[in-house]
Amino acid sequence: MRTIDWVQGAIEIVDQTALPAKLTVRRIETLDGLIAAIQELAVRGAPALGVAGAMGVAQLALAGTDVAEVRAGAARLREARPTAVNLSWGVDRALRRLEAGAEAVLAEALAVRDEDLAACISMGRHGADYLRAVVPDRDIRLMTVCNTGGLAAVERGTALGVAQTIHEQGWLQEVVPLETRPLLQGARLTAWELQQMGAPFRLVVDSAGPFLLSRGAADAVLIGADRIAANGDTANKVGSFSLALAAKHAGVPFIVVAPESTVDMSTTSGADIEIEDRGAAEITSFGARITAPQGTETYNPAFDVTPRELITAIITDRRVIHLDRGQELNTTPLQPSRQS
Amino acid sequence: MRTIDWVQGAIEIVDQTALPAKLTVRRIETLDGLIAAIQELAVRGAPALGVAGAMGVAQLALAGTDVAEVRAGAARLREARPTAVNLSWGVDRALRRLEAGAEAVLAEALAVRDEDLAACISMGRHGADYLRAVVPDRDIRLMTVCNTGGLAAVERGTALGVAQTIHEQGWLQEVVPLETRPLLQGARLTAWELQQMGAPFRLVVDSAGPFLLSRGAADAVLIGADRIAANGDTANKVGSFSLALAAKHAGVPFIVVAPESTVDMSTTSGADIEIEDRGAAEITSFGARITAPQGTETYNPAFDVTPRELITAIITDRRVIHLDRGQELNTTPLQPSRQS
Repeated sequence: MRTIDWVQGAIEIVDQTALPAKLTVRRIETLDGLIAAIQELAVRGAPALGVAGAMGVAQLALAGTDVAEVRAGAARLREARPTAVNLSWGVDRALRRLEAGAEAVLAEALAVRDEDLAACISMGRHGADYLRAVVPDRDIRLMTVCNTGGLAAVERGTALGVAQTIHEQGWLQEVVPLETRPLLQGARLTAWELQQMGAPFRLVVDSAGPFLLSRGAADAVLIGADRIAANGDTANKVGSFSLALAAKHAGVPFIVVAPESTVDMSTTSGADIEIEDRGAAEITSFGARITAPQGTETYNPAFDVTPRELITAIITDRRVIHLDRGQELNTTPLQPSRQS
Repeated sequence: MRTIDWVQGAIEIVDQTALPAKLTVRRIETLDGLIAAIQELAVRGAPALGVAGAMGVAQLALAGTDVAEVRAGAARLREARPTAVNLSWGVDRALRRLEAGAEAVLAEALAVRDEDLAACISMGRHGADYLRAVVPDRDIRLMTVCNTGGLAAVERGTALGVAQTIHEQGWLQEVVPLETRPLLQGARLTAWELQQMGAPFRLVVDSAGPFLLSRGAADAVLIGADRIAANGDTANKVGSFSLALAAKHAGVPFIVVAPESTVDMSTTSGADIEIEDRGAAEITSFGARITAPQGTETYNPAFDVTPRELITAIITDRRVIHLDRGQELNTTPLQPSRQS
């Protein structure tokens, strides 16, 4: 099942606002519908948003609107989540084919989708190969944070895609997903995906992850990435740094899994990454329920930065960069991508 | 305002199930009422439960019930929360005065209350003195987890009591409380207490604490303790270990504040402390709302264990044990307690 796809002339997405209670496919036939779906987080995750951006432009082009109108619509689409770099990237990639006609735009959108499918398969294999060397003789237990599964991409994920590959290969003992406050992507989405794939798992609150690592509860930690700086410092969902510290303390590998496009060589180090603060409401209430006194102020960093010295390896669709052996991103060669 | 007190012949408590939405004092005149209040967590926190246990026995004795009936009631009271060591301790302490008559039992219960008041004042002073040496020249920023304030004791708390003392002395810049999943004692109770005392604070999700320490957001971390082993290893609310690792990494003092009665010399080290698992429901739902797919299994450790090498100092009502200087609990002498 695909999180986002092009089905009989329109976009279809798995509606993530309904999970984990209900699996609903939402058919999107208009630009307004797509913008609403993005803003409600019915579709989310960097790779999935890239595909959504490209398909949104294709849908506009196919509707026979003129070029100026397509461009105006694309600008609105980009603004649906202005901080999501992949959304703009997908929109722009599709727009570049506009002069070649609507069918060419659609072909480009489908290529964005297919490249993500191939990249996730490749990351899954690279990750499984890497971990087989770490744990050669028994089933493996993995810890992860946030949602980096198929729901964040097209069909398979990044870090959770590695767990899925290992599960398919038959040597996954257990996954320990962190619930991932404040928005609970781990509890709502990752737990659901693991259940769908029939993989054994146990959910934990975020602060239990580091302690359980110290008690030997996992053989490796896998995370995704929002951005990887040139030196290997990695921005990802808040909670990643804390797991990295604990993994180092426990002597357990801490591995970043992300497509090559996440590497940003123009960012020198984590010190250059601005940390977005998402405001108080996500912390001081839960649904309709008030969880903190009125007027409570917060720090609510959307993500944190894990320094390269706490990262064992970065695994992309094209290579494995062994940071623990002193390898650098700018000197580790890209390998030809492995297709399924 | 006192969290628990003896007022005109009955127990009165601040009802913590109503916080932070509403401040309600609940008057308790019967054993059934007290048991219900304890089971609903309307009254909670080790020191407060000790007082509740002693006052509960006094209430039974004053009602003129015969000795056998008082003992039967005390047994029921003890079972209201069988894992809460302080509850049994308070019950037993009051029961030992039973032969001397009801007024003697009440006097003992009031002594338990008054000793907690004095111990918390003393911890606050010791803690403030310690931290003034750490940050001699400017206002201080403190990070903490769970609720260790007056709501966990009679009127002033342990770790949060230190913050309160510093605030009263006029050099508290800010407290950063962790929300403390799964039960959110930090968000619901600590934030409320800080607001009541007029202390500046910013609430954070648990996994943001370690990252914010790495970015210099606090000058020290203060936690309470459920049990301190003979070697200094400390069991406390889950999330403490993760903060301790991050404090070490950031070069910030990590300080345990707890009454002398928390030191358990019969427990050699943290390895001997059994970790209670509180089951899935606290994680998989929030109020009426489902937060994880049906059938989700969990690890839900109620607390974690911080090893002594990550603890800078332990501060009790009677002494400061400088673990970072190699001091041991069994050789650091008790000081006469400082009364207010």
